[in-house]
Amino acid sequence: MNEKRIPQRILLGPGPSDCHPEVLKAMATPLVGHLDPVFLEQMNETMQRLRQVFQTRNPLTLAMSGTGSAGMETVFVNALEPGDRVVIGICGAFGERMVDVASRTGAEVIQVRAPWGKIVDPGQIQEALKSHPRVKAVAVVHAETSTGVLQPLEEIGRFAQNYGALFLVDAVTSLGGVPVPVEEAGIDACYSGTQKCLSAPPGLSPATFSPRFEEALERRKRKVQSWYLDLTMVRQYWGMERFYHHTAPITMMYALHEALGLLLEEGLDSVFRRHLVNGRALQAGLEAMGLKLYADERHRLPQLTSVWIPDGVEDTLVRNRLLHEYGIEIGGGLGEVKGRVWRIGLLGHSSRRRNVLLLLGALEQILRSVGYSVESGIGCQAAEGVYRDFFG
Amino acid sequence: MNEKRIPQRILLGPGPSDCHPEVLKAMATPLVGHLDPVFLEQMNETMQRLRQVFQTRNPLTLAMSGTGSAGMETVFVNALEPGDRVVIGICGAFGERMVDVASRTGAEVIQVRAPWGKIVDPGQIQEALKSHPRVKAVAVVHAETSTGVLQPLEEIGRFAQNYGALFLVDAVTSLGGVPVPVEEAGIDACYSGTQKCLSAPPGLSPATFSPRFEEALERRKRKVQSWYLDLTMVRQYWGMERFYHHTAPITMMYALHEALGLLLEEGLDSVFRRHLVNGRALQAGLEAMGLKLYADERHRLPQLTSVWIPDGVEDTLVRNRLLHEYGIEIGGGLGEVKGRVWRIGLLGHSSRRRNVLLLLGALEQILRSVGYSVESGIGCQAAEGVYRDFFG
Repeated sequence: MNEKRIPQRILLGPGPSDCHPEVLKAMATPLVGHLDPVFLEQMNETMQRLRQVFQTRNPLTLAMSGTGSAGMETVFVNALEPGDRVVIGICGAFGERMVDVASRTGAEVIQVRAPWGKIVDPGQIQEALKSHPRVKAVAVVHAETSTGVLQPLEEIGRFAQNYGALFLVDAVTSLGGVPVPVEEAGIDACYSGTQKCLSAPPGLSPATFSPRFEEALERRKRKVQSWYLDLTMVRQYWGMERFYHHTAPITMMYALHEALGLLLEEGLDSVFRRHLVNGRALQAGLEAMGLKLYADERHRLPQLTSVWIPDGVEDTLVRNRLLHEYGIEIGGGLGEVKGRVWRIGLLGHSSRRRNVLLLLGALEQILRSVGYSVESGIGCQAAEGVYRDFFG
Repeated sequence: MNEKRIPQRILLGPGPSDCHPEVLKAMATPLVGHLDPVFLEQMNETMQRLRQVFQTRNPLTLAMSGTGSAGMETVFVNALEPGDRVVIGICGAFGERMVDVASRTGAEVIQVRAPWGKIVDPGQIQEALKSHPRVKAVAVVHAETSTGVLQPLEEIGRFAQNYGALFLVDAVTSLGGVPVPVEEAGIDACYSGTQKCLSAPPGLSPATFSPRFEEALERRKRKVQSWYLDLTMVRQYWGMERFYHHTAPITMMYALHEALGLLLEEGLDSVFRRHLVNGRALQAGLEAMGLKLYADERHRLPQLTSVWIPDGVEDTLVRNRLLHEYGIEIGGGLGEVKGRVWRIGLLGHSSRRRNVLLLLGALEQILRSVGYSVESGIGCQAAEGVYRDFFG
């Protein structure tokens, strides 16, 4: 019944991305129980696969039973208590969300702001750590989905460590698209989402926590404010104890297990290269068409490109025509650039040469029809140039 | 890949239950975006279907993006603030969980306890309301999944109303199995799970909130402590505003939409009758085999039967043999009856005559092989007797 009513889209927005057909097939597998030995074995394999993708040996590496935002909340409610102090770097909507989520724990939030489209300056994070005693944690967004900016992590990680603070990182849009070197960057808690570069449906938040984070958890004075996201209990289900906490989302777990298997089969390096070349090709094509990219060019994500909407062109008209005439979804702007930028994702299984060329072609047609002047085929030519440079 | 490794089970535990094949098929549908007009239309239809199943006209009727426990937390964190007072009825593990979840809001929890296996006495709830001023809410579990008891609601609903308290009800195991008359019982907030009598995979919590609950939400002094479960924001995505909050679990929403469609096609009354007759048949069969049921006979759920494990019979040995020799999952005991009772679910699509007879037959074989004396075929005969009485 469902398949007949749901049209087939090409998902080139900021997520969800297209699922690999094998992931969809996995979701049609009949259920087993959440304490079935076969399921527990698959959970162990999923944890092992997640460690590879997060580039860590952290024992506490699992998937929370909610979307990426539940992962964000998990990290903050487990890390913070009333009276704690946290430094948050903000250069987009998801940094803002961190402030909202962290504030609800009763912790004091010290905000380090950068203009949207730029990265957060690591030096300013260091300043904040210097001028505020006993900061418990420092948090930044690795791939800011609202602007398309890739935040460098290593320096901030070192500062956090120097000041004895936990380093918390949002990798919702980065994991599986660009390297997320959890151990190397000194990250203590890192969460992601299934529906971006992992190419599974939305619904789980893969996350990993360092032994240092677990020690901090032991030293808490009060219970974690969320029962559902309380890692002191959740880890006893994922760990050897297998204590029942809540019923795991079985089918979503099938999907994640399968998606991680496909990703590791392709190989992390190949996956990152694929994202890089398709992203650069798209960006070259858009620029050749005379469009201006939004994110600072030194820190552009390959998997998520934000572009200014040209003057006189109406946001929703173009997006609706892409959707209805070509079946392509792209995203609109969030927050301060709502209605002023488009966000084009080439995430996971959606990151394919055919999608780049299709989008550039479709966008050219629509833009020309609304009076925007663009030379025929110039976007695709520029993209093809990038593919030639990479692959010869 | 996945299908080959996951064995086919018959799920007769306390959940998840077997999914209808059409629900599994719906989950293999390619994704659309969470703001796609086709998806938003399907959400509206899902809300309408949920209102029918919850027997309510509540505008705020939706599915939270987590399992049933996330639904529980949603209700308490939105209803309560520090300093508020809540009366909770407890007669099993999920009542206990309510106390834990509610306590984390900073509210004062007044506990009204009954022995496990019994219902909470409505008179004692009234007493608690009388002796404590300004109680903000009264909460009970409708179908206590740890004991198999069905809690009557109407009287408690009236007491709550008389004292100006919100009435909060856990319908995780009841919704779709027995009537959950939200409006008639004066319920202000009611949550469920997808993986019990709705026969969809675990991962969403359908929930409904009365206009009175929404008014109380407006009068809150502080933000809801959970960002992810904050109804003041979540309702703006489900409502006409369509504000992005978090990325909806698209595939789980397909499943819920399909599962509700199948349920309503069968008809609520037929569904309740099916659960009733299969439950009574199972219970008659178990008793004929000399087993003792755990729940108070005046308040037994048809869809979840708890039964004492006979003396000298080892819990896990029997459950492992059911699983490995017959592919049948049943549940063990929780909390104070861990290792002492089995919990047998006939939930949703699992509630079928063939499952009742198969389980009774398999259990007879295993019990006899471990030295428990039982007359051959007596359980199935008693069950068939119940079917004859119902259907002639």
